[in-house]
Amino acid sequence: MLFIKRFKSIQRIAHITEPGDSLQVQVRLDMDFIHIVSNTFNLQGWIKSVRRLKNNVFLDINDGSTSGKLQVVLPRNPETQQLGAGSVISAVGRVQVAPNGHYELHADEVKFLSEGHLQDGYPFSPKQKHAPEYVREHLHLRSRVDYIAAQLRVRHRAQKIIHDYMDEQGFVKIDTPMLTTNDCEGAGEVFRVQPESAQLLKQMGRPNVPQDQSYFDQKVFLSVSGQLHLEAMSYGLGNTYTLAPAFRAENSKSPLHLAEFYMFEAELVQLEGLDVLAEFIERMLKDVTNRVLDANAADLHFCQQSANASSELPWLQVPWKMLSYDEALELLLANQSSFKTAVTADEGFSKEQELFLVSHCAAPVFVVDWPTRQKPFYMKSSRNNPERVHALDLLMPTVGELCGGSLRESDAARLSSHPDLPKELNWYVELRKYGGLQTGGFGMGFERYLQLLSGVKNIRDVIPFPRYPHSCKM
Amino acid sequence: MLFIKRFKSIQRIAHITEPGDSLQVQVRLDMDFIHIVSNTFNLQGWIKSVRRLKNNVFLDINDGSTSGKLQVVLPRNPETQQLGAGSVISAVGRVQVAPNGHYELHADEVKFLSEGHLQDGYPFSPKQKHAPEYVREHLHLRSRVDYIAAQLRVRHRAQKIIHDYMDEQGFVKIDTPMLTTNDCEGAGEVFRVQPESAQLLKQMGRPNVPQDQSYFDQKVFLSVSGQLHLEAMSYGLGNTYTLAPAFRAENSKSPLHLAEFYMFEAELVQLEGLDVLAEFIERMLKDVTNRVLDANAADLHFCQQSANASSELPWLQVPWKMLSYDEALELLLANQSSFKTAVTADEGFSKEQELFLVSHCAAPVFVVDWPTRQKPFYMKSSRNNPERVHALDLLMPTVGELCGGSLRESDAARLSSHPDLPKELNWYVELRKYGGLQTGGFGMGFERYLQLLSGVKNIRDVIPFPRYPHSCKM
Repeated sequence: MLFIKRFKSIQRIAHITEPGDSLQVQVRLDMDFIHIVSNTFNLQGWIKSVRRLKNNVFLDINDGSTSGKLQVVLPRNPETQQLGAGSVISAVGRVQVAPNGHYELHADEVKFLSEGHLQDGYPFSPKQKHAPEYVREHLHLRSRVDYIAAQLRVRHRAQKIIHDYMDEQGFVKIDTPMLTTNDCEGAGEVFRVQPESAQLLKQMGRPNVPQDQSYFDQKVFLSVSGQLHLEAMSYGLGNTYTLAPAFRAENSKSPLHLAEFYMFEAELVQLEGLDVLAEFIERMLKDVTNRVLDANAADLHFCQQSANASSELPWLQVPWKMLSYDEALELLLANQSSFKTAVTADEGFSKEQELFLVSHCAAPVFVVDWPTRQKPFYMKSSRNNPERVHALDLLMPTVGELCGGSLRESDAARLSSHPDLPKELNWYVELRKYGGLQTGGFGMGFERYLQLLSGVKNIRDVIPFPRYPHSCKM
Repeated sequence: MLFIKRFKSIQRIAHITEPGDSLQVQVRLDMDFIHIVSNTFNLQGWIKSVRRLKNNVFLDINDGSTSGKLQVVLPRNPETQQLGAGSVISAVGRVQVAPNGHYELHADEVKFLSEGHLQDGYPFSPKQKHAPEYVREHLHLRSRVDYIAAQLRVRHRAQKIIHDYMDEQGFVKIDTPMLTTNDCEGAGEVFRVQPESAQLLKQMGRPNVPQDQSYFDQKVFLSVSGQLHLEAMSYGLGNTYTLAPAFRAENSKSPLHLAEFYMFEAELVQLEGLDVLAEFIERMLKDVTNRVLDANAADLHFCQQSANASSELPWLQVPWKMLSYDEALELLLANQSSFKTAVTADEGFSKEQELFLVSHCAAPVFVVDWPTRQKPFYMKSSRNNPERVHALDLLMPTVGELCGGSLRESDAARLSSHPDLPKELNWYVELRKYGGLQTGGFGMGFERYLQLLSGVKNIRDVIPFPRYPHSCKM
């Protein structure tokens, strides 16, 4: 276990002289430094590259815990002659400062743990940069590519920090179900689930139940959102959230869509207005992002560089804006000529138009108070204007819409009489009956957030196992 | 947001005089105490019960953050006369110490936020204890039942602590896919997934692909385990883990099985032996459990009481034992007469036999070195005895088998020649080819762990939305 920690701490040490470090960081780094240069270490890792000079062999090795590499210096002899890229070694020695100021391990002893065979059919050349489409073809080997490994560490860190943040705020994480009988938004783009075994289906058959539904006695789908389930839990537990897979059976090749993706959704109780919800989202996203940067800026910058994206996230520094739907529409109509897509009052905004609004405001924008007919049945209607619901979209640079949210209709009678209420959602109406309260919340595509952070263009490269039309590898 | 924190801290204060508290806890509690009795608070929550005396009305209220209730004291007048169980109120006042030593809020002002209507069709009587089967029938209202809410908070806490622990140990969390083309153990008890829309399937059709498979060009199933996917990632990232839904299409009414459940799985690199893996599991489970107890003993004890289970977890105090399969079998054969189930050398142990071994050893037991024919293809065979694989089962009190693990076969040639290797797992064999290493790991049913902690008999009561044969509510 220890070797993973060590690689990270050695990388941290390399930043010891950076002027921006706080005193606290400096002290910690000094202690790490003394620890590192005064001890003998056993480091294990994959050889990323080899250089042979007259007396010495120089190996760049990596253990998967960081995008940095550590140089290992060995005497050149018949034994070390065989070391090649891809092999796994264990090296014992002392860390020293190289003439270029970097740290390197002078190894007294090297153990060869396994052979790399990187020439023999290995699809990635260590010195070449491969196109993401090509890398994706070899999904099972993809974590060995540096920018993918860095992206997966950033994903881990961002997820961990979201859990930390929500827990600190007193939210209870609810595991909303993957298998469900409701399809939330009613868009119909659902995956159906049933046992593969025809024998089991037959064995479980009941009168009046079609045989393909005999496992659950009804049609069952994969979840498109955990929102309605969160609401049910919030009526007993207060604030709740989830960060879980969601599924859409769409035939979309878009770089922003997947058949299986992750949704971060939260439900807040006693929520008085959309402004409170917007404030929560802005503070949460800024805080989470700053913590990701604090914890792992090196990997994030590595991803940004690989994606040819800027390392600046200017939206962290500015206050975010709020526009009503009507104001946003007016702005778009006034600039209609600059869009390829038509501006219509009926269909929401195109991505191009969303990015225009963000750019116009020079900040992320919450668009609030949407036309009722554009939004789902569960959103709370404005008591002053039934043509509007208390809904919110958050528009961000690069990705466009990142979050959607609303106050939920708290009035059982209004909800019951909504023409789009699915008939199987009696339970949802009944939630309001016994000690109902005003809740509201939002959903955020977690992969889109990662794309926003790292500038990675295709959503398929920020998730370990992308699933999309005609592709479900492994 | 603040009101949730306050309920918790008030509950903590109630323990101020407990003799076992450390000095650090005492100081923190003293500060909380001063903060609480010297300020006016606004508390919001559901009324759990009402008592009316001559001059005052006493309300027990709860906000979902704790299983404790706070008594609110109000003057009796026409306004407060209407307050009933289930209603949501907001009360402003000061916290005082009641004659019985408990804390209570003397409210100067009460705002009525919503009406409870608990008489009008509400299935749960506040003063009655309902059977779990009955409570489960009303799944959408279940979080309002105290022991279910407590269980969901314990679930949240245990999950959070597992993430904290694994992160501290340098593991990278991988979101293993729910949609997959492989079924890992080859048991065939899988759920099949395809789009519900026949039109979409037709639209996406390709030559030589059956139309029901046209979305992914092949049959796709719900994951039964993330292990093989974790392994692929560990070859680039080092130690990895996941805590994710898994699915089994079994017709089982057992109180230990669900169609959708959560698996905690970890993969460790450079793993030298099963003893190292067993040591990791024991230390992890003890540490995680102690942290759950530190963080939320009140809710856990509430669950244990509701389940008529002991609040003692003696397995935290003792060193765990290790038996070889042969030793375990010998013990069982020697005690054959005390079992209802037959002891056979071919089929593993029954739950009754597992619990006997735990009881015999007076400790949890790792059973190691299993017959090759009883275990799946990916386990490493003993180089001394090809009839045995390096596999491990962890047996615990109450639940029997909690974890299963193994070293993975690291030799590509041996793996390739295994008769049970599914033909679509070429990628799995290829992992060993380029810089292969010795990995190993384990899987644990997360709900079974929760049952072990809380003593809850039916697994359907430790997950918010249980899915089992003939039942998929909401």
